[in-house]
Amino acid sequence: MHTIKLIIEYNGANFCGWQQQPGVRTIQEELTKALRLVLREDPRQLTASGRTDSGVHARAQVVSFKVEQPVDFARLRRSISHIMKGELAIRSVEAVPDDFNARFSAKRKHYRYTIINRDTPAVIDRGFVWTVHAPLDIERMQREARSLEGHHDFKSFQAAGCAAKTSDRDIYRSELTWNPPYLVYDVVGSGFLKQMVRNIVGTLVEIGKGRSKLGSMQELIAARDRLLAGPTAPAYGLCLIEVEY
Amino acid sequence: MHTIKLIIEYNGANFCGWQQQPGVRTIQEELTKALRLVLREDPRQLTASGRTDSGVHARAQVVSFKVEQPVDFARLRRSISHIMKGELAIRSVEAVPDDFNARFSAKRKHYRYTIINRDTPAVIDRGFVWTVHAPLDIERMQREARSLEGHHDFKSFQAAGCAAKTSDRDIYRSELTWNPPYLVYDVVGSGFLKQMVRNIVGTLVEIGKGRSKLGSMQELIAARDRLLAGPTAPAYGLCLIEVEY
Repeated sequence: MHTIKLIIEYNGANFCGWQQQPGVRTIQEELTKALRLVLREDPRQLTASGRTDSGVHARAQVVSFKVEQPVDFARLRRSISHIMKGELAIRSVEAVPDDFNARFSAKRKHYRYTIINRDTPAVIDRGFVWTVHAPLDIERMQREARSLEGHHDFKSFQAAGCAAKTSDRDIYRSELTWNPPYLVYDVVGSGFLKQMVRNIVGTLVEIGKGRSKLGSMQELIAARDRLLAGPTAPAYGLCLIEVEY
Repeated sequence: MHTIKLIIEYNGANFCGWQQQPGVRTIQEELTKALRLVLREDPRQLTASGRTDSGVHARAQVVSFKVEQPVDFARLRRSISHIMKGELAIRSVEAVPDDFNARFSAKRKHYRYTIINRDTPAVIDRGFVWTVHAPLDIERMQREARSLEGHHDFKSFQAAGCAAKTSDRDIYRSELTWNPPYLVYDVVGSGFLKQMVRNIVGTLVEIGKGRSKLGSMQELIAARDRLLAGPTAPAYGLCLIEVEY
């Protein structure tokens, strides 16, 4: 038995998220079908570093699986990228030790959320940025983004139905960069709760608009109440950038 | 009569270039139809800073036209962006002196061509980058790109059927930046011949691949022969970034 690690890129718009489920087209299912075609056997224990939501993109999602037969890496990479033309591509393939698991072995993840803050709707970046028309207090948003760094209980930013045992997470970097008209949020953490990044972004935008009912991020964290934080930012602005092991 | 200047953004994939022509969907035609709908009169002398080729994108194309009735700028901007949803948007509208002409008043234009140099096909950037799989001698390409700065006769990079009176042009900046896996070519000039930027990029890539039949850019310029330069790079990697007046 061989354990294989893939780094894959995908356009989330074309899939209903990672997780296989009946009646919808998911990354896990389409990748399984393509691997079966190329490997001529069922990939076992196909696992991603995390289950990206429907519509979320990835530049470097990490996936692991097991196979009986040896794998021709170059052929696998070319064939899968060809089968999934333009929707998903394999950036790298390597053999890893048997105890490697894309999900449980992950140490840090880097997500990026891109906002375009201008009056004009997105054209060139359409489908990859969230257009926010309202004027934003960007300096305040930057300070509030920074205040999330550290070990916190992110219950206020956890979506309903999240199966995580604890809502405590370590955030190593939480930084908002203003490169007009782009407002780019980079967040690196040990792991993320369901919709946590999108809930943080939705809250930062509400703060930027000066919605007074929301206090500071520190107050929201202390409250441990999802209803006090802002709305969930749209999936298409989010991209998984890197997973470290 | 009022003279109006627009700055527009468009996804070139959706149009057969700027120039109105029978039987195909062009930016000039679609914009004319949308303006007629909103202004309730025919926009006259609708002119762009330059006629982008089929498939070429623009972040800030400049357009001028004349109208009889006064224009509600905010309404015009919103309405046109709404009608052309996701394909074209108006970034700004302003009244300009009557002698302003988007084409003839232009002083400098900035184009950007984006290459992704890796084995994997483009996914996230699909439709906006040219994927070059072959290894490239990037330092050599960077030196050759720089050597185009100055006043030169660009006949070797001029497409057949170009109506320009002279092939002399001033290039103020010609710079290739390597931000792996992106290779970004920024060129600023007084004006460009038909397909000139794409021919320069196609030639730079041939040089990067070490195709020996091509000499240096200086030799190619001196030869004044389109057949000696490289092939035309695909339209979808090119974007008009800015026009200065």
